[in-house]
Amino acid sequence: MPVSPLAPKIIPEMPVIDGVEFATAATGTKYKGRDDVMLAKLAAGTSVAGVFTRSATRAAPVLDCEAKLGQAAGRKTAAIFVNAGNANAFTGTNGTDAVAAITKAVATATKVPQARVFTASTGVIGEPLPTDGITAALDKMVADLSPEDMAKAAAAIRTTDTFTKVATTTVDLDGTPINIAGIAKGSGMIAPDMATMLVYIFTDAAVAQAPLQRLVGRLTDKTFNAITVDGDTSTSDTLLVAATGKSGAPAINDLRGRNAKTFGDGLHAVMLDLAHQVVRDGEGATKFVEVAVTGAASPSDAKRAAMAIANSPLVKTAIAGEDPNWGRVVMAVGKSGAKADRDQLTIHFGDTLVAEKGWVSPDYTEAAGAAYMKLDNLKITVDLGMGNGVFTAWTCDFTHGYISINADYRS
Amino acid sequence: MPVSPLAPKIIPEMPVIDGVEFATAATGTKYKGRDDVMLAKLAAGTSVAGVFTRSATRAAPVLDCEAKLGQAAGRKTAAIFVNAGNANAFTGTNGTDAVAAITKAVATATKVPQARVFTASTGVIGEPLPTDGITAALDKMVADLSPEDMAKAAAAIRTTDTFTKVATTTVDLDGTPINIAGIAKGSGMIAPDMATMLVYIFTDAAVAQAPLQRLVGRLTDKTFNAITVDGDTSTSDTLLVAATGKSGAPAINDLRGRNAKTFGDGLHAVMLDLAHQVVRDGEGATKFVEVAVTGAASPSDAKRAAMAIANSPLVKTAIAGEDPNWGRVVMAVGKSGAKADRDQLTIHFGDTLVAEKGWVSPDYTEAAGAAYMKLDNLKITVDLGMGNGVFTAWTCDFTHGYISINADYRS
Repeated sequence: MPVSPLAPKIIPEMPVIDGVEFATAATGTKYKGRDDVMLAKLAAGTSVAGVFTRSATRAAPVLDCEAKLGQAAGRKTAAIFVNAGNANAFTGTNGTDAVAAITKAVATATKVPQARVFTASTGVIGEPLPTDGITAALDKMVADLSPEDMAKAAAAIRTTDTFTKVATTTVDLDGTPINIAGIAKGSGMIAPDMATMLVYIFTDAAVAQAPLQRLVGRLTDKTFNAITVDGDTSTSDTLLVAATGKSGAPAINDLRGRNAKTFGDGLHAVMLDLAHQVVRDGEGATKFVEVAVTGAASPSDAKRAAMAIANSPLVKTAIAGEDPNWGRVVMAVGKSGAKADRDQLTIHFGDTLVAEKGWVSPDYTEAAGAAYMKLDNLKITVDLGMGNGVFTAWTCDFTHGYISINADYRS
Repeated sequence: MPVSPLAPKIIPEMPVIDGVEFATAATGTKYKGRDDVMLAKLAAGTSVAGVFTRSATRAAPVLDCEAKLGQAAGRKTAAIFVNAGNANAFTGTNGTDAVAAITKAVATATKVPQARVFTASTGVIGEPLPTDGITAALDKMVADLSPEDMAKAAAAIRTTDTFTKVATTTVDLDGTPINIAGIAKGSGMIAPDMATMLVYIFTDAAVAQAPLQRLVGRLTDKTFNAITVDGDTSTSDTLLVAATGKSGAPAINDLRGRNAKTFGDGLHAVMLDLAHQVVRDGEGATKFVEVAVTGAASPSDAKRAAMAIANSPLVKTAIAGEDPNWGRVVMAVGKSGAKADRDQLTIHFGDTLVAEKGWVSPDYTEAAGAAYMKLDNLKITVDLGMGNGVFTAWTCDFTHGYISINADYRS
């Protein structure tokens, strides 16, 4: 699979996060000749927060992780283990058994309590996950653990991803520099409810579990829950944020105050960067599209309208065809359920005013719209003229590449 | 555009409906060398019922029709006028002006009260509809009116349709034969809320406006609101049912009793036939797929799950690839919001039991699934194991053809 034309041009060097070590291995479960598992070992006292798919048919590893979150770290270590190629989803009791086998083997090999071993599986649904190759790889992985290998971990968790997704930033808490860095995989089955993505973010900040969990939930709404590739939702989505506290900066125990704000801004930046990369690797994507809805009657109406535009097959195929077909944007707003009035809509493509007062703008020309649509990065802004609700979503175009990838994924 | 491989093999002869006359003409508004407008004149006393798109950005002709429905026919005549190629949607005050110009010209030419002239426009959104060519064609159309030309009317209202859609049946009311026959257009932008379709059904039964309206609404839920091509919703959808009362059969004045039941069954058959034809002409479709959900906690949960499966790009691309990827069906149920439990799901492809109790059935083989998926007409049955709610939806596969058609519709 060729690398997405929308892949970031500059790939950052990943920092060492004090308190986190990585190892990867090739188990041959599905992919040959590449690493397909990753292990992250987290120092004693690391807080772990997370959000998961809302699917009613969540995979076994998701159910296991959900049950384990929410406890304060105390002095306990933790571990994250991910395999790519097989989602261990809808595999009946086999699924639960596989999670138990993997978490037990990871616990034994890493000396982490089993109740603090978080796993995820990504790939094909409905095929039992063989665990022997995975458990057999663990002792060597533990021996290989290194704080340097976050980028290798990012590469190991890919499935249909055409590029490795990493993001990093630093913030300053009372003079102490804090690293926040993360990895992600995901390129299809991406929908508002945190679809087929695995995201792992690590920081050396000290943040208590409860405020970290609240912050992650809040930031997910405007990052990973604001992107869509195909409107489909995976059974396996997992986002974990681990805070080791090794930086020596003052601990964040609630979300008030300047340090919490600064840390939240940094975490938001890393989450948004990774979320955008998932869209940029959308299956078959050739255009990255920001959809900004303003002037909605409420924030939920704004989200409804933005996601209806971002998910519309007709809007997305028009973008693929570089067709400034603003009529389809009107159609999507109309079907969204958001309060709207045809004659109050204002639509911009980039800086170009396209439509207002229920009709095309007198200054708009098809030539201007068509020239804009040739860009790789597009922005569609729709003001509903109803109130103050705003929401921004990110999507990609819908191309022959998506059909090709998904019409024969299993073959 | 080649004819859909799913087009019906046998096209029925359309009956004469006493009290209905048709004419068509070529105005050259967008299409060249084919008829693009149709006029139906309805005898005095004809009841007209209808349902329309629920889009918040409904086109001007829809707003006009909605305002005109609901009145008892009395002794008034009525007329239906449709143009294809330009939707007269999101055209600001031009849109309202065009509707006024057309309905006035039709009223003058046909001697039908303007308040009983129902129009619809289908085609590109956002371009003003020139009315001169249309109004100039009317006198000749009135002179050409003929009860024989329902099939020509069906051909004139096509846009991206690859075949003309007609359906007909007869029922017996107390020994008097009743004709029910209809025409439709629509092949993309088809979604649960009565998407880009125009449907006109004519009968010589005598049915009062109020019960006809109730019956049409009820039957729409299990026909046109149960089909999807791409989940998008048009700004122009219109379904009108006109009952001339010329058969001489006893009048239906409420929905109780055997005659109302018999008439309703006939109308349901014609509506379902036309709805299925719209799916069979889905843009790029190569497979016609029935999605039956049973055992849901409620009827609305059943609909939610069925439409989530029927709209899922991943399910629809798997079908295009003839891949029996039941894991994507599980995914779609999971994201639907319907109450579900992975371990209670039972999935059949045709008569083949694929999955039960949270995993693939022990008797299922990929070879059996793959052989089934090669058929043109498929049925996916999902029992949620939660209750007694049922819903059946119809969809098509998602192919390269859809992308090709929609990525350059305007060019």
